[in-house]
Amino acid sequence: MKIDMNCDMGESFGAYKLGLDEEVIQFITSANIACGYHAGDPLVMGRTVSLAKEHGVSVGAHPGFPDLIGFGRRNMDATLPEIKAYITYQVGALQAFAKAQGVKVEHVKPHGALYLMAVENEKMSEAIVEAIASIDESLIFVALAGAKGEKMAKIGEKIGLRVAYEAFPDRAYTPEGTLVSRRQPGAVIKDPAVVASRALMMAKEGKVLAVDGTEIPFRPETLCVHGDTPGAVNLVKEIRETLLQAGVEVIPLPKFL
Amino acid sequence: MKIDMNCDMGESFGAYKLGLDEEVIQFITSANIACGYHAGDPLVMGRTVSLAKEHGVSVGAHPGFPDLIGFGRRNMDATLPEIKAYITYQVGALQAFAKAQGVKVEHVKPHGALYLMAVENEKMSEAIVEAIASIDESLIFVALAGAKGEKMAKIGEKIGLRVAYEAFPDRAYTPEGTLVSRRQPGAVIKDPAVVASRALMMAKEGKVLAVDGTEIPFRPETLCVHGDTPGAVNLVKEIRETLLQAGVEVIPLPKFL
Amino acid sequence: MKIDMNCDMGESFGAYKLGLDEEVIQFITSANIACGYHAGDPLVMGRTVSLAKEHGVSVGAHPGFPDLIGFGRRNMDATLPEIKAYITYQVGALQAFAKAQGVKVEHVKPHGALYLMAVENEKMSEAIVEAIASIDESLIFVALAGAKGEKMAKIGEKIGLRVAYEAFPDRAYTPEGTLVSRRQPGAVIKDPAVVASRALMMAKEGKVLAVDGTEIPFRPETLCVHGDTPGAVNLVKEIRETLLQAGVEVIPLPKFL
Amino acid sequence: MKIDMNCDMGESFGAYKLGLDEEVIQFITSANIACGYHAGDPLVMGRTVSLAKEHGVSVGAHPGFPDLIGFGRRNMDATLPEIKAYITYQVGALQAFAKAQGVKVEHVKPHGALYLMAVENEKMSEAIVEAIASIDESLIFVALAGAKGEKMAKIGEKIGLRVAYEAFPDRAYTPEGTLVSRRQPGAVIKDPAVVASRALMMAKEGKVLAVDGTEIPFRPETLCVHGDTPGAVNLVKEIRETLLQAGVEVIPLPKFL
Repeated sequence: MKIDMNCDMGESFGAYKLGLDEEVIQFITSANIACGYHAGDPLVMGRTVSLAKEHGVSVGAHPGFPDLIGFGRRNMDATLPEIKAYITYQVGALQAFAKAQGVKVEHVKPHGALYLMAVENEKMSEAIVEAIASIDESLIFVALAGAKGEKMAKIGEKIGLRVAYEAFPDRAYTPEGTLVSRRQPGAVIKDPAVVASRALMMAKEGKVLAVDGTEIPFRPETLCVHGDTPGAVNLVKEIRETLLQAGVEVIPLPKFL
Repeated sequence: MKIDMNCDMGESFGAYKLGLDEEVIQFITSANIACGYHAGDPLVMGRTVSLAKEHGVSVGAHPGFPDLIGFGRRNMDATLPEIKAYITYQVGALQAFAKAQGVKVEHVKPHGALYLMAVENEKMSEAIVEAIASIDESLIFVALAGAKGEKMAKIGEKIGLRVAYEAFPDRAYTPEGTLVSRRQPGAVIKDPAVVASRALMMAKEGKVLAVDGTEIPFRPETLCVHGDTPGAVNLVKEIRETLLQAGVEVIPLPKFL
Repeated sequence: MKIDMNCDMGESFGAYKLGLDEEVIQFITSANIACGYHAGDPLVMGRTVSLAKEHGVSVGAHPGFPDLIGFGRRNMDATLPEIKAYITYQVGALQAFAKAQGVKVEHVKPHGALYLMAVENEKMSEAIVEAIASIDESLIFVALAGAKGEKMAKIGEKIGLRVAYEAFPDRAYTPEGTLVSRRQPGAVIKDPAVVASRALMMAKEGKVLAVDGTEIPFRPETLCVHGDTPGAVNLVKEIRETLLQAGVEVIPLPKFL
Repeated sequence: MKIDMNCDMGESFGAYKLGLDEEVIQFITSANIACGYHAGDPLVMGRTVSLAKEHGVSVGAHPGFPDLIGFGRRNMDATLPEIKAYITYQVGALQAFAKAQGVKVEHVKPHGALYLMAVENEKMSEAIVEAIASIDESLIFVALAGAKGEKMAKIGEKIGLRVAYEAFPDRAYTPEGTLVSRRQPGAVIKDPAVVASRALMMAKEGKVLAVDGTEIPFRPETLCVHGDTPGAVNLVKEIRETLLQAGVEVIPLPKFL
């Protein structure tokens, strides 16, 4: 049993610091680095690539909508060519920072509203994977695991990309197998013991409990974790240790996908 | 005798159209494509790469300061790491659009205030060429020809980049061999016959007349032209024809540098 | 019979020029001035207020979504407090330019997606009119005329604002009395004679023909016209003359509302 | 003896939180509220006006350069009309939030590079005070106290504005009476006891010690303090208590200027 742990990183911007990147980096295996549209800036991108390299963490791009005020969390009625171009732009920008430091961008995970809209919208998923494949066919596409989400993943596979199925141990799932909106109460699970046990169930048993108790089967290759607060970092540490103690190997996506 | 003709392109942004790219592209050999900081947007970048490819025009990046309101023409007191990161970000973004269309970014020419500040500031020139070399050592650095400007060019050569010395047929030169500021009267020469003859003098005799009549010797490999207005496009056509009739070969930089 | 003719103005941004403001200003009575979010910048705002003052044209704010790349034409899933704050910010900014020149912002007309989303969404209309009323209760709210659109207008009246019912002579209407989306073919009517006669029917008879031939009754107080191209400006001139010749008085909203 | 204590506030932006506004507000008398150019956003502006109102703190505008990535701390070669327009835009935007809550913008203090460039540049100071006076002649202009800085203040007085001379208890001063650049070591003084005693010397004796020991005479009406960290907030509390215990009255500018 092998699993990757991914975390959004490089979300600071100018004078604004967000996330405890230096701490959480110790416990994860893949970094989704913001690319300056919803978060991040060029200096931060360079530093975050450097931080990931130093800790042997796999580098990925985390492109979002051009909506810094809304942190990329607001749906935007962008056209498909716009979405393709936004992905291309942001992934390319990160690739240059990676190249400058002798590492490679290994995966792409759309951020926030871009990710969640794609789960619901096949045309948008197609635009996203077409952009990714056009830049580098060896890039790994991180997409939602679970019945509904898997449409997005299948679209990535169809175009020939390697796809990493992703699960969110700290997020509530609908019975349809997608994430409960952050605007709903209970969307984010905060009890560390609960989150760690959900993570283990995901990694080892290949399933998750939806909000109504439905058991959703899926087999994620990567677990999304967070490094926003000291509590969140401790949670990541706990997830990692729980996985390791249960005999799950925690390694970067490119090593087993 | 060989010379390249470069033109800033892809400066439109969203609903805003700037430049007659589709017309001027017929007469030039290198396109300096804006990368979304001072001008341009992802859709425009993709379209402009496509346009250049279609016309056999060499693709280059034209990174600028993050100053869309000021069109990158205002000096900004950015730090050297910031400047390196801005260059890396923008060149990388364009490379992805080029990659997606099977072409290569061949050159980098800093835009506006970034270019002119670098002419005056060796540390800034170093930051720029370090960023370029870190992304791709085969990139051509476009730098100002002429006594003063050549410091910038020499810094590019020192780090191992191929450098294209650039001259501006329609701009007035100071006796020190740099450009007269656009804020000065007479900074831009508008008479087509004068501009075309200056272009020919530059390409064939390797010299230009400064505002005080001083003859400045230099041997540019590329001439900067403009496609902002129908008149400008006609001027480009006239420059090209004047060069061709005088036996100067007009070809893209990568073919002779 | 009295009617106002309003036109979006001040949409230029930095080096980007959009709209023939100096020409169209001669034929209109109210200027909807962009406020820097979807278009416009501070210099342009000041100049446009000045231009309106010079021609005796009434000054209004034209706030939009913070989406310069998309020109405010893309739906954004902003929260109601965000929308209120965006309106407040932009109207306030324009008021300062008006104050500096001794004129008053007389009306507010939401731009693009903000306007069209409000037509469909009562909560959004409420947020918009609350923001307007909180700044200045004497501001006129420009809202869509016609069965469906009037919900938006009624919400403005309920809060105590004066409301100017607006019609679009060059836009196709659905039988439900709202605008056909710009993404649909035929959404914009281009024949000057048709547009002018629609304008006259709107102003004099208080009705418009929908795409299916349905006659929609409404009585607009203001007609939206455009100044993007020389052709558009001529059309505005033609509308004005058609109205005047038919005995319709063309005057600014504050003079009769 | 009366003095005001001002603090930059409302510098958060979207998902980015900056400053302990809720805590520091208890100890200050004037809030300089960021206006969305170098920091702040519309939602934050509204909330910060509300917070100030709730605590009886005087509301002021803190306009900066349009440089969010650089937090307005980088010199920009903007033209004088651009600077006037930037000030007008930002102050107007804040006025609308104040108006909506029944309070008044009482003062304007330029931010960061805009402030420091104006200290050195009389034309820029003129542009700033012209913008302020054109919006509301009763606005208080906050300007640097001390021999050199006072040029800026005098320009404000000349145009007829009330001017609040400002001193920085935690910043090192040059013998010429201006601030040592933040890029210099020792520019910011961190020992609370030293800062509190400097504040008292400023408020009570009307002088400050420059880095070379020179005693600079001035009589500030407002002291600039900071609320970035818990330590900074404690420092503000200590300054306030030190002043109160020494019999200095700590009250908002409009009450004594």
